[in-house]
Amino acid sequence: MIRITIIGLGLIGSSLGMALRNADPKESALGAVEIIGYDRDPAVTRESRGRLAIDRPARSLAEAIDGTDIIVLATPVQTIRAVMQDLVPLLAEGMVVTDVASTKLLVGQWAAELLPSQVDFIGGHPMAGREQSGPKAAKPDLFKDAIYCLTAGPRTRAVAIDAVDALVRTVGAKPYYIEAAEHDAYVAGISHLPLLLSSTLVSVTGASSGWKELAALASTGFRDVSRLASGDPQMQSDILMTNPHGLTRWIDAYIAELSTMRAAIEQGRADEVGAMLQRAKQTRDEWLAARPGLRPGEADFEQPVQIDRPSLLGLRLPRNNDKPRT
Amino acid sequence: MIRITIIGLGLIGSSLGMALRNADPKESALGAVEIIGYDRDPAVTRESRGRLAIDRPARSLAEAIDGTDIIVLATPVQTIRAVMQDLVPLLAEGMVVTDVASTKLLVGQWAAELLPSQVDFIGGHPMAGREQSGPKAAKPDLFKDAIYCLTAGPRTRAVAIDAVDALVRTVGAKPYYIEAAEHDAYVAGISHLPLLLSSTLVSVTGASSGWKELAALASTGFRDVSRLASGDPQMQSDILMTNPHGLTRWIDAYIAELSTMRAAIEQGRADEVGAMLQRAKQTRDEWLAARPGLRPGEADFEQPVQIDRPSLLGLRLPRNNDKPRT
Repeated sequence: MIRITIIGLGLIGSSLGMALRNADPKESALGAVEIIGYDRDPAVTRESRGRLAIDRPARSLAEAIDGTDIIVLATPVQTIRAVMQDLVPLLAEGMVVTDVASTKLLVGQWAAELLPSQVDFIGGHPMAGREQSGPKAAKPDLFKDAIYCLTAGPRTRAVAIDAVDALVRTVGAKPYYIEAAEHDAYVAGISHLPLLLSSTLVSVTGASSGWKELAALASTGFRDVSRLASGDPQMQSDILMTNPHGLTRWIDAYIAELSTMRAAIEQGRADEVGAMLQRAKQTRDEWLAARPGLRPGEADFEQPVQIDRPSLLGLRLPRNNDKPRT
Repeated sequence: MIRITIIGLGLIGSSLGMALRNADPKESALGAVEIIGYDRDPAVTRESRGRLAIDRPARSLAEAIDGTDIIVLATPVQTIRAVMQDLVPLLAEGMVVTDVASTKLLVGQWAAELLPSQVDFIGGHPMAGREQSGPKAAKPDLFKDAIYCLTAGPRTRAVAIDAVDALVRTVGAKPYYIEAAEHDAYVAGISHLPLLLSSTLVSVTGASSGWKELAALASTGFRDVSRLASGDPQMQSDILMTNPHGLTRWIDAYIAELSTMRAAIEQGRADEVGAMLQRAKQTRDEWLAARPGLRPGEADFEQPVQIDRPSLLGLRLPRNNDKPRT
């Protein structure tokens, strides 16, 4: 029996709990699991439990991680540092800590600074989400076929990586090993930049004196490009503020390209505008064609692993060079 | 029997034909209709006819408009001027000409310059579309509950407005009377700007040396914000190039707001970023709540009309202060 503690029972935390509890122990490399849930808001804990996302709630951090094997930090990114500080005196040797935040460099630095050497930290970031937040929006198949980024340091023990790798596979996601700095630069471009662009579109049009008329004419195009603006502002702000270096580089590149297009439009250079649109269409169509179900091409990007090891959890865990289950 | 000629049998032209042919003559203010279709590409004409979008194809413009009542110009915007020139010697007194282009100022200027005074021109722009183009993508319910902008000049005869108004209602759309300049400024913000932002996102990320990895990590957020980049580049280029004045103003406002956010992110001003995200969420959520089916709040924006007139078409046409059909 593997014990897993989820701290923070919002959309991601509760969805993880559901997915882990729904998994067939005979199919999962984790085997049978017990999910302990903790949230500083008792109402959230109650709702998460009511939706069967956890086996049992804990009333304190100490109770939550007592005798646990894996700790998943699923709180907003801005509170992760404080939670780590609170955990330090409570952690036991061999415990594995992971998180689900969308920025990995900062979280990795906090872990290196705060966590004792007898526990292992592996950063995690599932590339899945919904507009809605909280345990109400949680669903067990949120991670199905999603890429799940994992950042492990050079001193991270193999058994800890195995444990988190197994957790990721058990919820239906695909482990994707990546360096923290690289992760932050990449997700800034394909996740944080789109989020900022989407909200900025609504901000600019909504601030217009003609907004009432604009709103009447806005249709599916506006709806799609502005979709991310309906996400949770607190969570989005946290994401944008914890990845300034990755993000500002992309904003600069974006403004430069938009300015180039502006000049071409103003000066009537239709060929230049047409060429950009043509390139963009081709890039996107190829991207979309490469993944059934609109998920990134998982198969292409799994990294080979040298050795299979029996794990401390007493199981031979599948690694990311194994064939995906069918 | 009202005869309607559709010139240009792509997505919009063929969908209009289907919607008109599918309408119940007893319910429609147009009564029974005959749809004549013309496209300079015979293969497109054949496909449009094969999909039952038209009653009969014409082999020339002259044949297409012989004895017709309403001419719908549904060609790409860049070719409308040339088609108008070709039509001039063929037009008969009392014919009504309308178009479906997404920019109205330029098309209105062409009409004023070229068309003889014994025909009436009313600009039209249905706020509906699809990513795909051509008669293959056409569908009879494309305009259902969509806003359909109409721009009439001060000298446009009431009977002509009545005819196009009836056509718009017959295809299931809602007439929305607006000045051409105003239309262009508004749609630049809620339609052309989103289109440009979407393609620019793909252009910037796709040009990155890390695109292969970015592509692997990109998920639903990237998919949604980039959706418009998969549209027809030629059509999109036409749209952007024929509305430079409306669009550049919005691009400037957008870059200014994005630069403000960039500075706030770099300087760690989380409150400012959070406030923008909060405002954008509220604006979008209210916008979305105001329209069932993600269509703009039609009911609020219909304009009252003073007089009901019997029309030259022999019917009392419903005007835009009538209750919508239920």
